[in-house]
Amino acid sequence: MEAEKLNELLRQMTLEEKVDQLLQLAADFYSEKAEAKTGPMADLAISDTTVNQAGTTLGVSGAKEAIRVQTNYMKKNRLGIPTLLMADIIHGFRTIFPIPLALGSSWSLAAAERMASVSAKEAAVSGLHVTFSPMVDLVRDPRWGRVMESTGEDAFLNARFAEAFVKGYQGTDLANDFFRVAACVKHFAAYGAAIAGRDYNTVNMSERQLRDQYLPGYKAALDAGAKLVMTSFNTVDGIPATGNEWLFKQVLRNEFGFDGVVISDWGAVKEMIPHGVAANEKEAAQLAMNATVDIEMMTTCYSHYLAELIAEGKIKEAQLDEAVLRILTLKNELGLFEHPFRGANEELEAQHVLSKEHRQAAREVAQQSIVLLKNEQEVLPLKSELTIGIIGPAASSQDILGAWSWQGRQAEATSLTVGARHYSKQLHIAKEPCDYFQPSEAALEEATHIARTVDVVILALGETEWMSGEAASRSDIRLPEGQLQFFDAIRSVAKKLVVTLYNGRPLDLEAIQAADAIVEAWFPGTEGGQALADILWGAVNPSARLSMSFPTTVGQVPIYYNVENTGRPYESNPDEKYVSKYLDTSNYARYPFGYGLSYGTVRYQKLQLSSTKLSAGQSLRASIDVVNESTYERTETVQLYLRDVVAMVARPIKELKGFKQIQLQAHETKTVSFEVTEALLRYVHPNQQWGSDPGEFELWIGPNSATGVNATFQLV
Amino acid sequence: MEAEKLNELLRQMTLEEKVDQLLQLAADFYSEKAEAKTGPMADLAISDTTVNQAGTTLGVSGAKEAIRVQTNYMKKNRLGIPTLLMADIIHGFRTIFPIPLALGSSWSLAAAERMASVSAKEAAVSGLHVTFSPMVDLVRDPRWGRVMESTGEDAFLNARFAEAFVKGYQGTDLANDFFRVAACVKHFAAYGAAIAGRDYNTVNMSERQLRDQYLPGYKAALDAGAKLVMTSFNTVDGIPATGNEWLFKQVLRNEFGFDGVVISDWGAVKEMIPHGVAANEKEAAQLAMNATVDIEMMTTCYSHYLAELIAEGKIKEAQLDEAVLRILTLKNELGLFEHPFRGANEELEAQHVLSKEHRQAAREVAQQSIVLLKNEQEVLPLKSELTIGIIGPAASSQDILGAWSWQGRQAEATSLTVGARHYSKQLHIAKEPCDYFQPSEAALEEATHIARTVDVVILALGETEWMSGEAASRSDIRLPEGQLQFFDAIRSVAKKLVVTLYNGRPLDLEAIQAADAIVEAWFPGTEGGQALADILWGAVNPSARLSMSFPTTVGQVPIYYNVENTGRPYESNPDEKYVSKYLDTSNYARYPFGYGLSYGTVRYQKLQLSSTKLSAGQSLRASIDVVNESTYERTETVQLYLRDVVAMVARPIKELKGFKQIQLQAHETKTVSFEVTEALLRYVHPNQQWGSDPGEFELWIGPNSATGVNATFQLV
Repeated sequence: MEAEKLNELLRQMTLEEKVDQLLQLAADFYSEKAEAKTGPMADLAISDTTVNQAGTTLGVSGAKEAIRVQTNYMKKNRLGIPTLLMADIIHGFRTIFPIPLALGSSWSLAAAERMASVSAKEAAVSGLHVTFSPMVDLVRDPRWGRVMESTGEDAFLNARFAEAFVKGYQGTDLANDFFRVAACVKHFAAYGAAIAGRDYNTVNMSERQLRDQYLPGYKAALDAGAKLVMTSFNTVDGIPATGNEWLFKQVLRNEFGFDGVVISDWGAVKEMIPHGVAANEKEAAQLAMNATVDIEMMTTCYSHYLAELIAEGKIKEAQLDEAVLRILTLKNELGLFEHPFRGANEELEAQHVLSKEHRQAAREVAQQSIVLLKNEQEVLPLKSELTIGIIGPAASSQDILGAWSWQGRQAEATSLTVGARHYSKQLHIAKEPCDYFQPSEAALEEATHIARTVDVVILALGETEWMSGEAASRSDIRLPEGQLQFFDAIRSVAKKLVVTLYNGRPLDLEAIQAADAIVEAWFPGTEGGQALADILWGAVNPSARLSMSFPTTVGQVPIYYNVENTGRPYESNPDEKYVSKYLDTSNYARYPFGYGLSYGTVRYQKLQLSSTKLSAGQSLRASIDVVNESTYERTETVQLYLRDVVAMVARPIKELKGFKQIQLQAHETKTVSFEVTEALLRYVHPNQQWGSDPGEFELWIGPNSATGVNATFQLV
Repeated sequence: MEAEKLNELLRQMTLEEKVDQLLQLAADFYSEKAEAKTGPMADLAISDTTVNQAGTTLGVSGAKEAIRVQTNYMKKNRLGIPTLLMADIIHGFRTIFPIPLALGSSWSLAAAERMASVSAKEAAVSGLHVTFSPMVDLVRDPRWGRVMESTGEDAFLNARFAEAFVKGYQGTDLANDFFRVAACVKHFAAYGAAIAGRDYNTVNMSERQLRDQYLPGYKAALDAGAKLVMTSFNTVDGIPATGNEWLFKQVLRNEFGFDGVVISDWGAVKEMIPHGVAANEKEAAQLAMNATVDIEMMTTCYSHYLAELIAEGKIKEAQLDEAVLRILTLKNELGLFEHPFRGANEELEAQHVLSKEHRQAAREVAQQSIVLLKNEQEVLPLKSELTIGIIGPAASSQDILGAWSWQGRQAEATSLTVGARHYSKQLHIAKEPCDYFQPSEAALEEATHIARTVDVVILALGETEWMSGEAASRSDIRLPEGQLQFFDAIRSVAKKLVVTLYNGRPLDLEAIQAADAIVEAWFPGTEGGQALADILWGAVNPSARLSMSFPTTVGQVPIYYNVENTGRPYESNPDEKYVSKYLDTSNYARYPFGYGLSYGTVRYQKLQLSSTKLSAGQSLRASIDVVNESTYERTETVQLYLRDVVAMVARPIKELKGFKQIQLQAHETKTVSFEVTEALLRYVHPNQQWGSDPGEFELWIGPNSATGVNATFQLV
């Protein structure tokens, strides 16, 4: 439809139709079963008319059902405006990929884009139009269960992933490419900074930090074309995001120039009442409307009170019109006026959903996401001649999809033991059920027996799916006590002990440091067990690098690599009492940002700068030789970090400002270069504007945030 | 001296003399031993002239030494300007009182004032003029070792204590009352919010939160007349406090109207180099000067570069003059021009320092500070007919003074066992040395034997002095593992088990919840063991109430009672998954703010409001009956909490807004009233101004922050 016609359509709409266009209802309201919708309708006090005027729908799935819902909806909708079908497709639709935190560990933008495009295809042929992804919330606290849904602690890395996700979901021609869906970046803003890692908790930080560290991820997604933005549950400096006019109108709309659709998170408009900034639904509606929130998800403050607010002059009808127009525009951009069913197609659904190609993609992305944390005396990769035991609660577990895998099915996931059978005929696999929290005596006995018998034991530990994700904060980030006791028992009898982990957050792994090897597989998705086996037996050389720090103890959190220097840095005088440190643990992560091992060793050498001076408009080239010292082929992620030594405010001691993934053949050396420009050196000044300061900068190129070859240059 | 004469004096001073007036040097520089000062002088590259022009001195002590230093100094000082002697007198000079966090627990402003006036007297007769106290930093993270030096987590309570301290130190006539010293409020600002509880670490928060929660304590101290302000080590929104022009010039000087002396913390001017906002000492001097920092403690950026900065026009000489004049004014306000030795007097020193009266004051204040956390089946107070064992590492320990007790001597402290002998002849006291970290087998054996023998065991546990205080952050806030094992062993054999604790921070006490009673004695000072015995045997009914929350685990921190509500409060639906909570622990403190037990029970009833409407300029009276239901006399701290139900920003679910301590005889009932005014309902609005919002308020009166009788009223 031509854009001009949307205005015409808008003019035909009654006030009630416009108001209802802003309402999002769940799939139940469109169920074939009357009893499924009567309850919810009564709860919300809405009529059948409202249901068939509600502009968007949450959680409908399957081509057949999507077509049915759309058909009925349009039939009953006076103007025949199609509904928009949305859902949380976070790391795969039916073919589940690794959780986003694992994708972050891949440092592979191609992997992220591939995940997103496969997800989009499966979702689109199943009838969906919009996914509530990517989540780009910066995270520094592993207690927060939703870190699994983020790509990690770094603004730069998150921004690059944000772009890749959006590209993968949306492609380049959303109106005609029906294998794509619109992306909704979330949660605007700073949802990841919940105090004490408790989900939905208060967020507080300075505007400068918000702009410098937290906003760039969202901004990158918008610049990449994300069509929607979701509000966050938290307050931003005391005002709930969903009613925060400064945040949405000033920053998002005016400064970032976003003219797409803003949607509240589930119930977030009405939640401004418990937040204590709205006395009732009507005030909540007013706040959200003034913040330019277009779609109200799952509550009906708009439906019940917007007309009244307009009648009273508290909200201008023009505000409503703008919101409606943004929603209609999105529908139009998705081609829905011409193709209300869009990609929904049972035949294509059967062909693509969980296809062999998609499973293969999931396997490869999982391979790229598994982090080798420890590998003493090269116990890995496993030699084919050795006898291998596979034990522990996660040994044969298919609970490896992770949270936010709505359409995923555990029964379709490959467990580690299934994967392992491709590589070894000498497997001793535990058969006794082994609980994640209280492994039985029988399980321990069997496992101990296996451990004594074999050359190498693989002890598969971790979290269950419900232990991370939304509303899954943990104050204790160790493995469950029962698993630690199991570990101790096995450690005392095993010759060689490899621990594999499925989990959704950085864990305190101090209690299993006696393992010979530790492999962080995260929740790796449908092909996760297979990918893990691919890594363990060396069919694939692990290449993933952490995108979030693993603390030594929860007593260190929040912990992140890009801290600001203090006035009394520990490093300046480690033997001194009066420096910034703990009495009982280090300042550093056990496994820092950017860290991960591969098979074989690599050396960074011969760092060269094209100049030691950089001026605005120019660029400086930093080059380094990366030498594969082993016979293993490998993927190496070369990381560039910078530090502004003297600035207007205290700056991080290191900040990621570039990375490149290269392939190295056995004993191959490659030269890797980065262009450093003045733009890369900007940060948010006390006046809230991005700018750079002349003076000295330090630069490191290396394999992770804790080490690298360094040099200095001047910005002039 | 008349104020006008100070200007005359200023005009006589050379530029160098003025610059050096801003320098503070340590006592060593004025030592009689040449070798004690040559090293430091060489380190700082300063001359003898500078030493005798440095305006203030740190850490000289003892009347004789103070008189000697002043005499020599004035002899060599061209204009005969006296030096100003400063030191950290935090919770007592030689007679050590409970640490400030314990004083906070007393909720007794009279106790705080008493501590301060006794400290002032001992310090003053020993020759000191200024103490670096009170510290009023709001604290929410028990990992931070310096919580021991704060009165706790609440802005209102801290502000009241700030006033009491200043009153106690300064009295009403500083120029003539030579038993007083000038107070220096610290650390401006927000030092207590160090990220992850690591001392000196970055602080970040919104300006609104800074003003609303963190600044009121300092402001109260200034309004009470504190003569000095100390800068904090941390950054405030990226800019080190010591060079933060906005913070000091705009907020402290212009808004708060402070015209007294600002002193840097130890070395904090030069520390702006590692902070990364100054390239060198010269830039650091410029930043500090522009922030109106008058005295540079222990570094020489001013001495080396201020003249140069003035010559280059980067600093105006008028700025220097203002700083010098503020210092001279302070000296004059202390009467130093007429009485350069001021209170220093060996005879008075012998008479007052550690006098019987002062020890008695310390004992009574300690009694008021000891918190009874648990008392199952009234195991306490101890009955005189019972046999009592006293065991554990702290049983006979004199390490009970706590950090910041510079002049205090452990040998002068009364241990618990010494105190206990006043009450019981049936004591079985462990004699084996018992380590705080690794109690020996012999100690455990003896303790176990005693535990089996007696009716009630007192197991004395805790931290050593060095485990809290500056640069004493702990990531693990449990008792040391060796003590927990010791506890378990004793618990299994003891009939009744009372745990007493000496420590400087809220601890995770989950592992000792099997104790029948827990008594938090903090670091109680010189008379601490005696005061603890007074409580245990019931000579005094414990009345203290926590001023900082005790978490169930370090995984909950930061934790504090006055949290803002979320959009999904746990309390709204405890059985729901999607509410703000942890999977594995509660949202609440084990022992919340305001909590503490006394012997006997008390009931709050008949809350009455004089009106359910309050308008500006009026007040509303809230009254309640407090009923002593027991035969024990008691001191009860009646606490008033308010909540602004709907505001412009999310407000705390409860905020302390008043408290009164009353004495109740056996079975006595008293009516306690609070006046609620509109001014009490103000908070910092998004425009950074204090204001109130009309609408509903909740009010509670009760014994702690977790319970109380409530009512609502309207602000109209």
